[in-house]
Amino acid sequence: MSAVSDSDIVSRLQKLSIAHPEVISHAPVKGGSEWHAELQKAGKEGVQLTKTLLFKPKTAKTATPTPVLVLAQEQTETSSGAIAKLLNLKELRLASEDLIKEVIPSASSKDDVSALPLPTPVPSTLHLLLDSALAASSAEHAVHLTASSSTILLKGSDIKAYLDSLVQGEGVKIVDFAELKSEAPAPAASKADKIPPPHLAGAAKPHQKKDEELYEMAIQYKKDEDFPGWYTDVLLKGQMLDYYDISGCYILRPWSYTIWQTIQNWFDDEIKKLGVQDCYFPMFVSQSRLEKEKDHIEGFAPEVAWVTRAGKSELEEHIAIRPTSETVMYPYYARWIQSHRDLPLKLNQWNSVVRWEFKNPQPFLRTREFLWQEGHTAFLDKAEADKEVLDILDLYRKVYTDLLAVPVIPGKKSEKEKFAGGDYTTTVEGFIPTTGRGIQGATSHHLGQNFSKMFDIFVESPDKNAEDKRCYVFQNSWGLSTRSLGVMVMTHGDDQGLVLPPKVALQQVVIVPVGLSKVEGRNQEIYDASLKLERELIAGGIRAKADLREGYTPGWKFNDWELRGVPLRLELGPRDIAANSTLAVRRYDNHKESFPLSDIANTVRKYLDDIQSALLVRASEVFDSRLKVVTNWDDVVPTLDAKNALVLPWCEQEQCEDEIKERSKSQSNKGETEDVKAPSAGAKSLCIPFDQKRFGEFPEGENQKCIQCGAKAKSWTLFGRSY
Amino acid sequence: MSAVSDSDIVSRLQKLSIAHPEVISHAPVKGGSEWHAELQKAGKEGVQLTKTLLFKPKTAKTATPTPVLVLAQEQTETSSGAIAKLLNLKELRLASEDLIKEVIPSASSKDDVSALPLPTPVPSTLHLLLDSALAASSAEHAVHLTASSSTILLKGSDIKAYLDSLVQGEGVKIVDFAELKSEAPAPAASKADKIPPPHLAGAAKPHQKKDEELYEMAIQYKKDEDFPGWYTDVLLKGQMLDYYDISGCYILRPWSYTIWQTIQNWFDDEIKKLGVQDCYFPMFVSQSRLEKEKDHIEGFAPEVAWVTRAGKSELEEHIAIRPTSETVMYPYYARWIQSHRDLPLKLNQWNSVVRWEFKNPQPFLRTREFLWQEGHTAFLDKAEADKEVLDILDLYRKVYTDLLAVPVIPGKKSEKEKFAGGDYTTTVEGFIPTTGRGIQGATSHHLGQNFSKMFDIFVESPDKNAEDKRCYVFQNSWGLSTRSLGVMVMTHGDDQGLVLPPKVALQQVVIVPVGLSKVEGRNQEIYDASLKLERELIAGGIRAKADLREGYTPGWKFNDWELRGVPLRLELGPRDIAANSTLAVRRYDNHKESFPLSDIANTVRKYLDDIQSALLVRASEVFDSRLKVVTNWDDVVPTLDAKNALVLPWCEQEQCEDEIKERSKSQSNKGETEDVKAPSAGAKSLCIPFDQKRFGEFPEGENQKCIQCGAKAKSWTLFGRSY
Repeated sequence: MSAVSDSDIVSRLQKLSIAHPEVISHAPVKGGSEWHAELQKAGKEGVQLTKTLLFKPKTAKTATPTPVLVLAQEQTETSSGAIAKLLNLKELRLASEDLIKEVIPSASSKDDVSALPLPTPVPSTLHLLLDSALAASSAEHAVHLTASSSTILLKGSDIKAYLDSLVQGEGVKIVDFAELKSEAPAPAASKADKIPPPHLAGAAKPHQKKDEELYEMAIQYKKDEDFPGWYTDVLLKGQMLDYYDISGCYILRPWSYTIWQTIQNWFDDEIKKLGVQDCYFPMFVSQSRLEKEKDHIEGFAPEVAWVTRAGKSELEEHIAIRPTSETVMYPYYARWIQSHRDLPLKLNQWNSVVRWEFKNPQPFLRTREFLWQEGHTAFLDKAEADKEVLDILDLYRKVYTDLLAVPVIPGKKSEKEKFAGGDYTTTVEGFIPTTGRGIQGATSHHLGQNFSKMFDIFVESPDKNAEDKRCYVFQNSWGLSTRSLGVMVMTHGDDQGLVLPPKVALQQVVIVPVGLSKVEGRNQEIYDASLKLERELIAGGIRAKADLREGYTPGWKFNDWELRGVPLRLELGPRDIAANSTLAVRRYDNHKESFPLSDIANTVRKYLDDIQSALLVRASEVFDSRLKVVTNWDDVVPTLDAKNALVLPWCEQEQCEDEIKERSKSQSNKGETEDVKAPSAGAKSLCIPFDQKRFGEFPEGENQKCIQCGAKAKSWTLFGRSY
Repeated sequence: MSAVSDSDIVSRLQKLSIAHPEVISHAPVKGGSEWHAELQKAGKEGVQLTKTLLFKPKTAKTATPTPVLVLAQEQTETSSGAIAKLLNLKELRLASEDLIKEVIPSASSKDDVSALPLPTPVPSTLHLLLDSALAASSAEHAVHLTASSSTILLKGSDIKAYLDSLVQGEGVKIVDFAELKSEAPAPAASKADKIPPPHLAGAAKPHQKKDEELYEMAIQYKKDEDFPGWYTDVLLKGQMLDYYDISGCYILRPWSYTIWQTIQNWFDDEIKKLGVQDCYFPMFVSQSRLEKEKDHIEGFAPEVAWVTRAGKSELEEHIAIRPTSETVMYPYYARWIQSHRDLPLKLNQWNSVVRWEFKNPQPFLRTREFLWQEGHTAFLDKAEADKEVLDILDLYRKVYTDLLAVPVIPGKKSEKEKFAGGDYTTTVEGFIPTTGRGIQGATSHHLGQNFSKMFDIFVESPDKNAEDKRCYVFQNSWGLSTRSLGVMVMTHGDDQGLVLPPKVALQQVVIVPVGLSKVEGRNQEIYDASLKLERELIAGGIRAKADLREGYTPGWKFNDWELRGVPLRLELGPRDIAANSTLAVRRYDNHKESFPLSDIANTVRKYLDDIQSALLVRASEVFDSRLKVVTNWDDVVPTLDAKNALVLPWCEQEQCEDEIKERSKSQSNKGETEDVKAPSAGAKSLCIPFDQKRFGEFPEGENQKCIQCGAKAKSWTLFGRSY
């Protein structure tokens, strides 16, 4: 498609008899105030400005993009959320330069975005919206032609006429943004008009059904076919979370938050046994403190959210929201640690941190605010600190394997991938088989004395003859976040919805009455038996619930609880009651088995334990089958492309790490069709597993060579595509 | 002291042979850019500016203020925290207009603050600081004379000479702010130079002692003599919290955070029994949502913290940090509540909220970020909602009485004092006898349908014949915060430090070995016995610890644990061991009693229960004795001034409530000496106690008249000064 030029636009205007448009050339401008200034120089003071915004909605990666171009008065509030709702699209964000050039070939940056040089006819995949206030205005408004360095003054009504001429059919879509805004926060009056949950607003086929019906629908995507669509759908329909009107922030509903509380309780008990105490530091950090450790802050700086105003007062010093708390806490460690008697100091906090990522957010995995714990400990001896790093890492492993039934590989991060500012980082690495990507599960860092020297955290040497009286403490920090919940969902979930491991499920068992009669009063016996069963299970320490909701069929209830991943369903009908038994249906494999009602609590408790173990076994078998030892470069990319994780012999040099990544990326046929969710199609180093023997004893001598450089390899290292 | 005029300043300059200063008159300016603009008009483009800041440190209310005046180059960072540290002062904040006029009589607003019109000699209570970069500069800098509408250009070195001439002794203090800044976050290299905890940095006598010694000191203030000083000192030395470098934010150390966790665990279990589920909503709110409910937001708007920037990007829409979550959560309630089957919906979150108060902050009681729980529930029936309001309030009462051993009075807030946007507010009201002020303990609100109509939260009427098909839900919200910890400390603490109720103390019992020998190895028996005792108590479910720290005397340890409020001390020495007993010393009244070591865990457990009860009884007796029924206006102010809470017959009209407050304020001799911590010396309505009978049956007929207007009183109402 060839670019439209300024003179093309002028001739289009002439054809429409939009008379004497004056083209003003000026310096390129970024934003309204520069534009105003340039127009003022050109003698056009006080002209009303317009703004033109190009958005990209979130779509399945295979779908054709359906961008949205909005032309509005400068002062009109054009909320992307409201527009998304209006058009039934998902998560609008400003378009990338690539997309801008695709839609408007004449534009060379976002400052040049304008509706005037759109091709004619405008493609049907483009949503073109015009602000009703602008369309109705007879005042002249400044609009760019093909670049931010040229301006034309047009009446609002002429702009409408111009755009109408570009669009086939009924003309440009006029939008009343003021009305849209007033409607946006709360749903409209009628239930049928209510905001559909964003996942239901497919780009191609807007739904018109009522929420109630929509909620009842099954998962709309296959896990193997559209994994991102499936993931979102499962989370929403499983009632794990809901989308929020601020991008990258999500609501953790009780169904997921309770899982987090289970992890909290277990982990908190364990670290208290290690002598760790909980505390709470403020969420705010002053700029000077945040920027104290240069290496450390460099990694976080672009993502820090800044508070600059309180009420109507501008703050004298801007205040950051913590992205992590090293620099928040350590000045106080220096104050509190006065002698070796104050060591070790072991503090932990449960809080939320904010990292304002501009990359595509993803529930649990990449969110702007997330919940976590962060432990920060200080020791006199390095050996003691080193030991704690591994003790904590083993607790993290157990969170994954024992609570979430998710296999992970404990190991050490490469120098390149370690925590900035620390000495070394250990990690438990997970793997998502459906995408073939590794995912970092939780990390435990040894910070050495880097921070203690920076923050002057030292005690006097117990050795009176020591030359240097200062013993700087050795520090660790370690964190586990709600990301773990995302890994769990991705690991166990299936095309029917969530699959929750019994240990963390808010509800472990659902009792569904079946074989109901339509004659009133005839079902009381079944209801009573269901409630009795519920009581027995609860008394036996099982989180059970009888679903006696009226107006839903048993089949609907089966589906509902399957969506939500309840590990075990017990069906209870007249025949079961007569036989003093219940039909047990396992969520993860739909296996059916009849249980006698006598001693049911013990039977179910044991069965839930078996389910818990079986989930871990199943997931481990898949992970193991995808863990491929590769010693020949030619096998690297095909193995990656078959959605495996690689175990490579590596010399542990950063240069080889970089080259492995670049080379695997360039050779992969996935390189070009890389989807937005995947930051890299190249293989990153994930970790150097502690259990090296698992991959065969590393041979002595020169037998095992680094897969990249051919020099002597130091270790088997896990490489892969990753989240 | 008479004001110095512009011509006085010019003649001072002339006396010092600072030649030809040119006085420029211009429009009054606020801040640098206006000043630059005015100077440009006067043909002085690009002149370097100065800034002059007057700070007030926090001091005991009886102390003479010791303000700090800083004159610096415009671009110099003059961190108030760093200055405070340098001068060993507490919490510098910009001075009030009153203080400005006191220090610089010629100034009529903060824009006029200048060092030039200082009186000579400068009072010794004023710290005058000059930026070293300015003092060393030979370039001309703009300085105001007596007002922001006049400017003089002076070389930096001449400014120094001028200020030197005003100060007796060694001249003006020169400060290198760049160096100060680089030192500020971490303490300097030597322990002796470390930042003293702020409470130890008295304004009048800067301490030079080492922290270690400072920490060992006893509480420096008497509770009855300097309550604010005592409170801060007790919190810091008891290791409940530490000050933070952002004003109004505090660090909750494990000693206090654990108390909060105990409250959390207890309350969370209780609300789960009521069917409430925990969840987590984002901390961020978009502006449009925040401002949805006008009445509601009006109360919070001036205190909302706004995020306007992420990394280097300005955000298109500014984002608030939640001050509370009604408007965060309710749009989703509208989405989730689709039919009466979805009701009741009962959610709770444990989180932190931010209210950027500009009033004097106070640990726990008034902080910019605080931890709390907020429950938000929705019901089909009003009666069910009404019942829950009281169920929750009763749980709040129990948190105070059963866990914190603090008496409270449950009641209803007046219309004026209720939660903005709700129907009615219930409260548990506490009382701090030392100051004679009431304090709101926790509140449980019925919101009626106000929010549900605003956010369209409704279900279809189950009544098919109903005219209006929409049943808007009835809502409640309820919250309890870490403020409760402050009330506990104020209630039980004494001149020796904290006094913690056993149920919430992280450590309930400390075992201190006594009668130790200085001969090495001779004490092993005592240590072993102490550890055995510790094990026995822990096995009996008691949070006990043997303090075997070396290098501290038993007396030092007694003092240390008294400061920290551990409820019970068990002393164990050779004689105790011989007698198979231990000396038990009760923290709250220092009562001593010998306990046999046999069956010690049961003895101690029972004893701790007695201590818990005794603390509540003691506090209740004090509260009761300060609760005065007053029916004659003449008694109101004397009773208030004697630090009592009033129980007044009141007509429940807002006008009388206002008049009672105004009248009691104007008549009180406390009115003028009102300290900054106390927002009002007048008597506010605190609550209408539910238990009216406690104050004598309300007589029928016209017998009991409103104390203010004389019309028929409706209720006994608690009035008092308050926090």
